[in-house]
Amino acid sequence: MRGFGVFEMGKVGWLEKPDYVCGPDDVICKPLAIAPCSSDVHTAMEMEGPWLKDRILGHEAIGQVIEAGDNVKDFKVGDKVVIPCTTPTWKHPDIQDGTHQDAGGLFTAINFSSYEDGTFADQIKVRSADMNLAHLPENVTLQQACMAVDMMTTGFYGSELADVKFGDTVVVFGIGPVGLMAVAGAKLRGAGKLIAIGTRPNCVELAKEYGATDIVSYKEGDIVEQIMALTDGKGADACIVAGGGMEALNNAVACAKFGGGNIAMLEVITGKETMELSNAYIAGFLAHKTIKGGLCPGGRKRMERLLSLISNGRVDPGKMITHTFHGLDEIEPAFHLMVDKPRDLIKPIVLFD
Amino acid sequence: MRGFGVFEMGKVGWLEKPDYVCGPDDVICKPLAIAPCSSDVHTAMEMEGPWLKDRILGHEAIGQVIEAGDNVKDFKVGDKVVIPCTTPTWKHPDIQDGTHQDAGGLFTAINFSSYEDGTFADQIKVRSADMNLAHLPENVTLQQACMAVDMMTTGFYGSELADVKFGDTVVVFGIGPVGLMAVAGAKLRGAGKLIAIGTRPNCVELAKEYGATDIVSYKEGDIVEQIMALTDGKGADACIVAGGGMEALNNAVACAKFGGGNIAMLEVITGKETMELSNAYIAGFLAHKTIKGGLCPGGRKRMERLLSLISNGRVDPGKMITHTFHGLDEIEPAFHLMVDKPRDLIKPIVLFD
Amino acid sequence: MRGFGVFEMGKVGWLEKPDYVCGPDDVICKPLAIAPCSSDVHTAMEMEGPWLKDRILGHEAIGQVIEAGDNVKDFKVGDKVVIPCTTPTWKHPDIQDGTHQDAGGLFTAINFSSYEDGTFADQIKVRSADMNLAHLPENVTLQQACMAVDMMTTGFYGSELADVKFGDTVVVFGIGPVGLMAVAGAKLRGAGKLIAIGTRPNCVELAKEYGATDIVSYKEGDIVEQIMALTDGKGADACIVAGGGMEALNNAVACAKFGGGNIAMLEVITGKETMELSNAYIAGFLAHKTIKGGLCPGGRKRMERLLSLISNGRVDPGKMITHTFHGLDEIEPAFHLMVDKPRDLIKPIVLFD
Amino acid sequence: MRGFGVFEMGKVGWLEKPDYVCGPDDVICKPLAIAPCSSDVHTAMEMEGPWLKDRILGHEAIGQVIEAGDNVKDFKVGDKVVIPCTTPTWKHPDIQDGTHQDAGGLFTAINFSSYEDGTFADQIKVRSADMNLAHLPENVTLQQACMAVDMMTTGFYGSELADVKFGDTVVVFGIGPVGLMAVAGAKLRGAGKLIAIGTRPNCVELAKEYGATDIVSYKEGDIVEQIMALTDGKGADACIVAGGGMEALNNAVACAKFGGGNIAMLEVITGKETMELSNAYIAGFLAHKTIKGGLCPGGRKRMERLLSLISNGRVDPGKMITHTFHGLDEIEPAFHLMVDKPRDLIKPIVLFD
Repeated sequence: MRGFGVFEMGKVGWLEKPDYVCGPDDVICKPLAIAPCSSDVHTAMEMEGPWLKDRILGHEAIGQVIEAGDNVKDFKVGDKVVIPCTTPTWKHPDIQDGTHQDAGGLFTAINFSSYEDGTFADQIKVRSADMNLAHLPENVTLQQACMAVDMMTTGFYGSELADVKFGDTVVVFGIGPVGLMAVAGAKLRGAGKLIAIGTRPNCVELAKEYGATDIVSYKEGDIVEQIMALTDGKGADACIVAGGGMEALNNAVACAKFGGGNIAMLEVITGKETMELSNAYIAGFLAHKTIKGGLCPGGRKRMERLLSLISNGRVDPGKMITHTFHGLDEIEPAFHLMVDKPRDLIKPIVLFD
Repeated sequence: MRGFGVFEMGKVGWLEKPDYVCGPDDVICKPLAIAPCSSDVHTAMEMEGPWLKDRILGHEAIGQVIEAGDNVKDFKVGDKVVIPCTTPTWKHPDIQDGTHQDAGGLFTAINFSSYEDGTFADQIKVRSADMNLAHLPENVTLQQACMAVDMMTTGFYGSELADVKFGDTVVVFGIGPVGLMAVAGAKLRGAGKLIAIGTRPNCVELAKEYGATDIVSYKEGDIVEQIMALTDGKGADACIVAGGGMEALNNAVACAKFGGGNIAMLEVITGKETMELSNAYIAGFLAHKTIKGGLCPGGRKRMERLLSLISNGRVDPGKMITHTFHGLDEIEPAFHLMVDKPRDLIKPIVLFD
Repeated sequence: MRGFGVFEMGKVGWLEKPDYVCGPDDVICKPLAIAPCSSDVHTAMEMEGPWLKDRILGHEAIGQVIEAGDNVKDFKVGDKVVIPCTTPTWKHPDIQDGTHQDAGGLFTAINFSSYEDGTFADQIKVRSADMNLAHLPENVTLQQACMAVDMMTTGFYGSELADVKFGDTVVVFGIGPVGLMAVAGAKLRGAGKLIAIGTRPNCVELAKEYGATDIVSYKEGDIVEQIMALTDGKGADACIVAGGGMEALNNAVACAKFGGGNIAMLEVITGKETMELSNAYIAGFLAHKTIKGGLCPGGRKRMERLLSLISNGRVDPGKMITHTFHGLDEIEPAFHLMVDKPRDLIKPIVLFD
Repeated sequence: MRGFGVFEMGKVGWLEKPDYVCGPDDVICKPLAIAPCSSDVHTAMEMEGPWLKDRILGHEAIGQVIEAGDNVKDFKVGDKVVIPCTTPTWKHPDIQDGTHQDAGGLFTAINFSSYEDGTFADQIKVRSADMNLAHLPENVTLQQACMAVDMMTTGFYGSELADVKFGDTVVVFGIGPVGLMAVAGAKLRGAGKLIAIGTRPNCVELAKEYGATDIVSYKEGDIVEQIMALTDGKGADACIVAGGGMEALNNAVACAKFGGGNIAMLEVITGKETMELSNAYIAGFLAHKTIKGGLCPGGRKRMERLLSLISNGRVDPGKMITHTFHGLDEIEPAFHLMVDKPRDLIKPIVLFD
């Protein structure tokens, strides 16, 4: 097999590896569509560790089954399948008692491009296939489905973590692809006023299309002041941080209402030993503002639910794709596009026609 | 004051009563819009009791303040106000510990047209005004707001009781005005496939517009069989009963999935000493199907949240109005329209221009 | 292998069967303790179906591993293990989305003595061993642990279904072993006043020891009236039905408070096509009383949690054992004791020393 | 009236003020018991602001009604009443939509000794009496009840914020009176292993009596290492911070399990512009550890629930009282005892016999 990956921190390129051996619960797929993600760039360029030597990158993909293990019941060769970026083994008892994302240890559900090879290859191995894969519905495009496996499940998780309720005023910090999906998700959980923070014109346009009622930009003044003005000084019921790091998190803490404001944290904070939370607006957590974060939910049922939303016309995440590439070799320019982040980029895709 | 009400069971007409005296926490309004409800017909024609002697009917209204009590802070003469049909006193400690609808006793929050006079009059008294009224937003019409005070809060409660989640398959039984709002509410909580049960053409049309993806009619065969076919034999994640009584409830029980199916009951079952629940599909409640019911939530915050949804373009409940009347005297024909229920009726309104 | 079971409905006795073959995820145990349950009697004497031909009974047991499948990581030959009566495969995607008890279909997690052989044998096969078994802690006796695998998990589920909160007034209907555990569980979730309904002297004594503050008996008058008197006419926050069938369920519905009363249903209602729920006290479910039922939770984590409660001295379920038998052959008299139900019986156990 | 209070920051003494005027919803009480709290010391010695000029201190008290407003229904002159330290007006619509503690603004429910005079006086005014007071049950002592109004409601809130479940491993940081009540509360929510962090001998003794199974002291080594050893390296399901400030909070973050660990924050962090949260163990909140904090719940129903626990013998908070004073004048030495904090002090009380 051949895949695009990282040799060592900062050095990317093509890797040749032996073909996968299909375990009894696994399937092997060929890719139908893959999408690079900013966390691929992060993994390749900024993370270090022996497990990242000669590691194929990528965790977003739609595939077609080319081999299925003996125990696999629901998927057979030829099936078009949606591969979540979060694929637990579902074999650790922790799934009975907490979040599947961390069953057996922190982030264990994220194996693609971490301790196993990822999706930027002519072969993709999916473990616990019956528990992780979903069939691609007929009326869902590759583009739409490929945006569901990470961007949509992550963005939609925002509203779940922040427990958005009918008529809530919601603020989404950052309107890259995760933030855009957080906007779309908040609308579909019942947000009333929905304030999106961002500046890039095509993102702003799409945020409005996905349900934002107000756009706030740092160019127009202080973010917190603008939000407080838009909420009559009361603050927001729910804030979702989908970009902007600690500064955005602190702005969210400042803008969440006293007495029940919820903050969802979708962004990892790396390279910092401590997070410096502004105390003024949260009073040592005594102000009844709750911060919840987490990796995106994965697994088969989650995918089926998101695909049902797409298939039933509730949301079209495919609109986020601004750049389309074709064939295995174009993974490389697609990846470099994510590195360069031109101003008109929201999300690229590589199709295998 | 003059109002349309019930003299005794089955005898309706116009009542003359002394003007209201405004208590310190109350406001007195004149009506800007009122809407008759099928439960007004039910109250007038089928219920009996000394408290229903010479009782003014009506519990849906938008008003304008003509007098405000001394303790009222947030509403003053001239304000246009949205009056929820559920107006607790908020002065009973039960509100600290359960549902406000029953604080101090079953259904105590429903005073209009039960133990106090209702909204079909040239004066409407609202108790605990600061806690119950909401200001009418500028970009919300009388028609839209008047559909929020009972129909929308009740219908939307369906998805809350049934705990609708992203991608849920939801069935709504009945597509009168409450059922239509249940459809709209389920969409705004994240329903994927959304099956509505009904037959009247304009209701079917509006159900689709509000988000129904499939329509099931008894004319096409057995309801349960049709739903099971549409759900690949798995049943629905959530069922909302907004019409059809015990038969619909039993159909909902049959269609809710094993292991977590939720049923919201929005319809009162009257005139029956026992409810006969089909045991086959629920196994004495051991099948993990939960039935939850309740009166619609009221109060100021609830109204503000629903108005925020309308004001931000998430839903337009005004589309349900099929018949418009004008002025106090036309309450009478509007009421009788509800009695007659012509096939093209969804919801009437009386405007006071 | 040899086991005590049912040849056909109503005919019980000893069965000889081939030894188990241990699958890769399974373990085979020999019994250290088993306990008959009234549902064994029910299965043997009142249920019919081809799957109940020559079926070994029993679903409560503590075992010692005599063989472990190749995939089993955490259990090895010689380990003393606690075997929950509810042992899902944990391999169906439904576990991601609802209750594990019904993953893949109603009651699928209950395989012992239904569609697979049970625990009344010299060999017990446990599927998905790593996900279902728990190690027997050193300071927990066989008697205590054997009461946890069904009685305690079921009884404690009552407080979870009824969402018992600090200071709740709780009523437990029935003080057989499940009811006694419901009493103990309610105390450990924070019940204040805890009313137990029953009459048998040793059960009454034990109910008090486990935390009941008041005992109500049908011999003293109407159950509902007595409970309403004990609750100053307000009714209970939570009712748990652990015996008494539809009559108890209707009493629970009558006694649960308006506006938030919860009813947990732990008893299966069989042989009835319809459940006749008294409507007067629930008003077609509009009185905000919620009935929740379900099979007891199983699996490893559940067992570990219950064992932690025992091991840390929070509860001693071993006190329920009134009759002790020894060795495989005594399963027969132990079973017949359950059939006869002498007045001093709470729970028998068979030990294998 | 005469009360002990603060003239300005750091200067305490006796104040003479005009007698209270009883509003229509208020009652005026004479004290039967009051207890100083370390937050009284904090208010008097470290806080500044115009509202703290000539302010009577104190927020824990049991009283006897000497005057009742015209609207008060449930309390009359002579009644012995339990006065929660958190007494919202219950007249702000925020109570419909969030926590009552902050209805109308941060900490608005805490009026005693902040923007109104406190309980260290010969008269105590309680607003919204029907909504805030509870009757003192006959079998509950003044000592027990006086420990419920702040210490018990705060400590028990820990388990509620941290969502303690059956068999959870719980860690309580700090075993002063709030921490001791956090221990007792965790036991009554179903904690299995219950680790308490502290060193003072009488506190350690009482922690064990209230349910701690393990005691960890900084004197024996690193706190986090000891907890991880006690939890087999898995961490705790729930951590409750009842003392120790940021250091304890960071230890709690380090000890809470990945994938669902909950941290309850009961201590205010003051005098810090930022809270420095250790990122290593929480990964920017992506590790699925949730921190929740808040002021203790108050109001009548809360008090009645806690009193029910005491009255039914579930817990005896009176055991925390180590020092007893008598009469109004001894408020002064009782306060100074809290300032000095002798090693054997847990909680003082002043009785008015």
